[in-house]
Amino acid sequence: MIMRMSSLFVRTLREDPADAEVPSHRLLVRAGYIRRAAPGIYTWLPLGLKVLRRIENIIREEMDSIGGQELSFPALLPREPYEATNRWTEYGDNIFRLHDRKGADYLLGPTHEEMFTLVVKDLYSSYKDLPLVIYQIQTKYRDEARPRAGLLRGREFVMKDSYSFDIDDAGLDASYQKHRDAYIRIFDRLGFEYVIVKATSGAMGGSKSEEFLARAEVGEDTYVRCTKCDYAANVEAVQVAPPRPVPYDGLPAAHAEQTPDTPTIQTLVDHLNDAFPRADRPWTAGDTLKNVLIVLKHPDGTREPIAIGVPGDREVDQKRLEGQLEPIEVEPFDETEFKSHPSLVKGYIGPGALGEKGESGIRYLVDPRVVAGTSWVTGANVDGSHVLDLVVGRDFTPDGTIEAAEVRDGDPCPVCGVEGGAGGTLETARGIEMGHIFQLGRKYADALDLKVLDESGKLVTVTMGSYGIGPSRAVAAIAEGTLDDLGLSWPREVAPADVHLVATGRDEQVYAAAERIAHELASRGVEVLYDDRPKVSPGVKFKDAELIGVPTIVIVGKGLADGTIEVKDRATGAREDVAADHVVDHLVRLVKA
Amino acid sequence: MIMRMSSLFVRTLREDPADAEVPSHRLLVRAGYIRRAAPGIYTWLPLGLKVLRRIENIIREEMDSIGGQELSFPALLPREPYEATNRWTEYGDNIFRLHDRKGADYLLGPTHEEMFTLVVKDLYSSYKDLPLVIYQIQTKYRDEARPRAGLLRGREFVMKDSYSFDIDDAGLDASYQKHRDAYIRIFDRLGFEYVIVKATSGAMGGSKSEEFLARAEVGEDTYVRCTKCDYAANVEAVQVAPPRPVPYDGLPAAHAEQTPDTPTIQTLVDHLNDAFPRADRPWTAGDTLKNVLIVLKHPDGTREPIAIGVPGDREVDQKRLEGQLEPIEVEPFDETEFKSHPSLVKGYIGPGALGEKGESGIRYLVDPRVVAGTSWVTGANVDGSHVLDLVVGRDFTPDGTIEAAEVRDGDPCPVCGVEGGAGGTLETARGIEMGHIFQLGRKYADALDLKVLDESGKLVTVTMGSYGIGPSRAVAAIAEGTLDDLGLSWPREVAPADVHLVATGRDEQVYAAAERIAHELASRGVEVLYDDRPKVSPGVKFKDAELIGVPTIVIVGKGLADGTIEVKDRATGAREDVAADHVVDHLVRLVKA
Repeated sequence: MIMRMSSLFVRTLREDPADAEVPSHRLLVRAGYIRRAAPGIYTWLPLGLKVLRRIENIIREEMDSIGGQELSFPALLPREPYEATNRWTEYGDNIFRLHDRKGADYLLGPTHEEMFTLVVKDLYSSYKDLPLVIYQIQTKYRDEARPRAGLLRGREFVMKDSYSFDIDDAGLDASYQKHRDAYIRIFDRLGFEYVIVKATSGAMGGSKSEEFLARAEVGEDTYVRCTKCDYAANVEAVQVAPPRPVPYDGLPAAHAEQTPDTPTIQTLVDHLNDAFPRADRPWTAGDTLKNVLIVLKHPDGTREPIAIGVPGDREVDQKRLEGQLEPIEVEPFDETEFKSHPSLVKGYIGPGALGEKGESGIRYLVDPRVVAGTSWVTGANVDGSHVLDLVVGRDFTPDGTIEAAEVRDGDPCPVCGVEGGAGGTLETARGIEMGHIFQLGRKYADALDLKVLDESGKLVTVTMGSYGIGPSRAVAAIAEGTLDDLGLSWPREVAPADVHLVATGRDEQVYAAAERIAHELASRGVEVLYDDRPKVSPGVKFKDAELIGVPTIVIVGKGLADGTIEVKDRATGAREDVAADHVVDHLVRLVKA
Repeated sequence: MIMRMSSLFVRTLREDPADAEVPSHRLLVRAGYIRRAAPGIYTWLPLGLKVLRRIENIIREEMDSIGGQELSFPALLPREPYEATNRWTEYGDNIFRLHDRKGADYLLGPTHEEMFTLVVKDLYSSYKDLPLVIYQIQTKYRDEARPRAGLLRGREFVMKDSYSFDIDDAGLDASYQKHRDAYIRIFDRLGFEYVIVKATSGAMGGSKSEEFLARAEVGEDTYVRCTKCDYAANVEAVQVAPPRPVPYDGLPAAHAEQTPDTPTIQTLVDHLNDAFPRADRPWTAGDTLKNVLIVLKHPDGTREPIAIGVPGDREVDQKRLEGQLEPIEVEPFDETEFKSHPSLVKGYIGPGALGEKGESGIRYLVDPRVVAGTSWVTGANVDGSHVLDLVVGRDFTPDGTIEAAEVRDGDPCPVCGVEGGAGGTLETARGIEMGHIFQLGRKYADALDLKVLDESGKLVTVTMGSYGIGPSRAVAAIAEGTLDDLGLSWPREVAPADVHLVATGRDEQVYAAAERIAHELASRGVEVLYDDRPKVSPGVKFKDAELIGVPTIVIVGKGLADGTIEVKDRATGAREDVAADHVVDHLVRLVKA
């Protein structure tokens, strides 16, 4: 197939578009791949559509290779199934809603769990029908509060979403692993740097969830990786490896002390160093235990105050907290709450008043570092007073642990960095979420009553996995990960063409030779973008080729007189002269390698 | 590629779905191709999606072959461009409208003229860039008042829409012809009966417009065809060939007569036969001229009453009338209108009071049959009185003609049936509109200011053509046109598989042989639907194969012991026994023929 620059529906721009925030967005517009139609809504021009389709086809091939079956749901969906799972309400402003002419409620599907669950319920009824993997590559909608960065966070976008259906947890594990393997093959073929990070799966419990992130400074997702081993996790999902319990023997007894006007950690530490200096080392925030009160709003509407204890040198990370609790919502513990819990002394709250058995009856969860045998300075629950040398397990016992404290660069790696000093530490990095694989379990099957008969003729609820990749976001993420100062630079499997053939000058023999090469390449299955524009200067043609970013640039020009043609690698800039007689063979080998 | 019935996501149903109105809808649901998600909104199951994609690919290949370039617009569109062309208002209840979270207005695109026009305006600026053909295959939305017949009239559906852009009318003619040729190739490949009919293009004037209809009793479109020549036209587009003018010489003078209580044609004809009997033949409705008053509502809001004169034996056809006038709307001429035109005598309105020069000043358009020299009985514009022998051109002159009278079976063909009695006559038939090609002209380019520089450096408005095919509707239309009592019966190019291979009985050798044949076929590029279900009876397998409708059914069963395999043609039912050793070669030849 030959695309000719003289007729291709494309115009390259020398200027950056005004609204582009990130390099991939700027270049995709400048190189004529996409155009903005509305905020977060884009038109795919021919070059952009080619890249999108190639990505979709890679995904399709790998989904088919694990037995996935493609189908296609509508984007315009009735309210009822989303009502049944409560998502009609939960999505809030994030979905587009509309009425039809009869006043019936519809939404533009942001994701299709309900529809997949219902179609399996419609067609299948027996364990013999399982396992099943079905998927679609389809347009989805989210009314993002802040659509940004071009295709990276759009309001209309393409998703491959697949679902696995299994009779039991072992089946789900196997289906999850098959998807994980397929995703690795997909991301390897897409040809750019990615990382697989552990992700939280909210209140759904211990089920597995991993994200595939493109490494990118412009990414919205923060993750941590180990400096030494291959551990990587979404910040929400980092699990602090708890230190070993410490023996209590020989530890001094707890003692309350006057600490007037020390409602904050800093004022407390200053006061401790003034009034109770330690011989070996000064007091630091890390010696204190900070107790934070919040209110949980459960999905059934009930409200429950809880206390969270974290080392005083760390903040509670709202995203980590929410990630642990979802779909429970977090609300502030306000003055009204304080009034209904008169046993709590603001600014000096201590473990003594907390816990299900404590005076307030408020559940008390602590950071995993607050382990048995460790000593802390914390509130005495008396105004202007703290307790020193309060030992966990000896003087108080929390109701449980929670991963809510912030993660910091330099924290020990939970896998290899726990014991001793030789292990790795964590460092934060940014990425673009491109894929998510997720053991959904029975949430949707329960809500929509998807049951099948098992071998003994008993009805059992099906367990599901959910697996997504965004091909339209991938276009931008791959562009972002591979571009350079000159323009886009596509990996071979996703490029809009295999070869960008440039004919330079005005010599008719040059154009005749280029034309012949283009046809020979096309006849051997090589996709050619041929710059055949007769009146455009070589400089402009080279700049356009670099901007458009096809991986191999072939220049037919002055060298032809000596029988040579220049072949240039877009990514490395490496050039070589190839004999005109052999250039087609050379290119076919390069492209099909 | 092998699809196995044992794992394919499909369930065939023995019962018709309750809501299915037409055979194709019933069978597409029963055979497991589609499922209803909401009124007029369907989910494509794997078999249905295969057929849809094959149709899309045929269309894509033929669009590419005429130099069409594929791009893709969003479905969620901002209001502004549709405001600029007034279609935001004109569409009324027929489009889905919604707000985003900021309250901005959006619509779900019913068609993309505006977006195509704007993207060309964005990228192109010179005559050198033209001609251009761009297209998309994309999901569209219309909030139909009565979604019906499954995929035939849906609310979410797939369209290929292409547009041509040319500098002048000759260019548009050439682009139109290229599309027409491509459409003929597409419809030939789709493999079913179709007819190309002339269509109206409303107020846009003499520009060309043709529809591609599938012949189908269940179709919503009525068209007429000639019994003799190949003339075919949408009823709206039929142009009555006017009879030749008749000489006035020797015709009796017009004379008003008392015709009390004859406000209808029937009472008038009865009275004429009673009071003024003719020697040679009785009076009939066809001798009378009926004058119908309506009000035109022009797009700028102005209202204009007009009178339409048609032979008394024909009604005014509302659809033909509207087709002629669009986008002008038609409203009734009510009592208020009569009051403001006191010169008109209700029930006895005659040409004397009409016409721009008549007493009322109301414009008077007549059916083309009301030609100079013809004599009529018509209202005298005096209560209880008609004029007889009133001759067109001698006694009155209309302001023009209009094609508004109903078309009837047996009317002479406008092409071959005009002069003499030996020509063809028209007969009505029903069809499904599957494609429409249309010279848009400069309507959208004018509204959205799409101009380019011509050779002399002058800005000129671009002229456009619009060309649509509905692949999702085509799935149903092809099914409708090819199904039989047993089930679906797909033409080869669009079938979900090439061969439906059925293994019968419980003999392991049969399954081993079938498995081998399936793999050999797949390795030679034949798509196989393989019924490998071990516990399903041959009868059920045969019924399923006939219902699903793959064009070739191959049965591996008892005959295998004698070295033969049965090959059956789904459409004709013809069977032949083929030697097992040669069956793969035989099938490859059949499929690739």
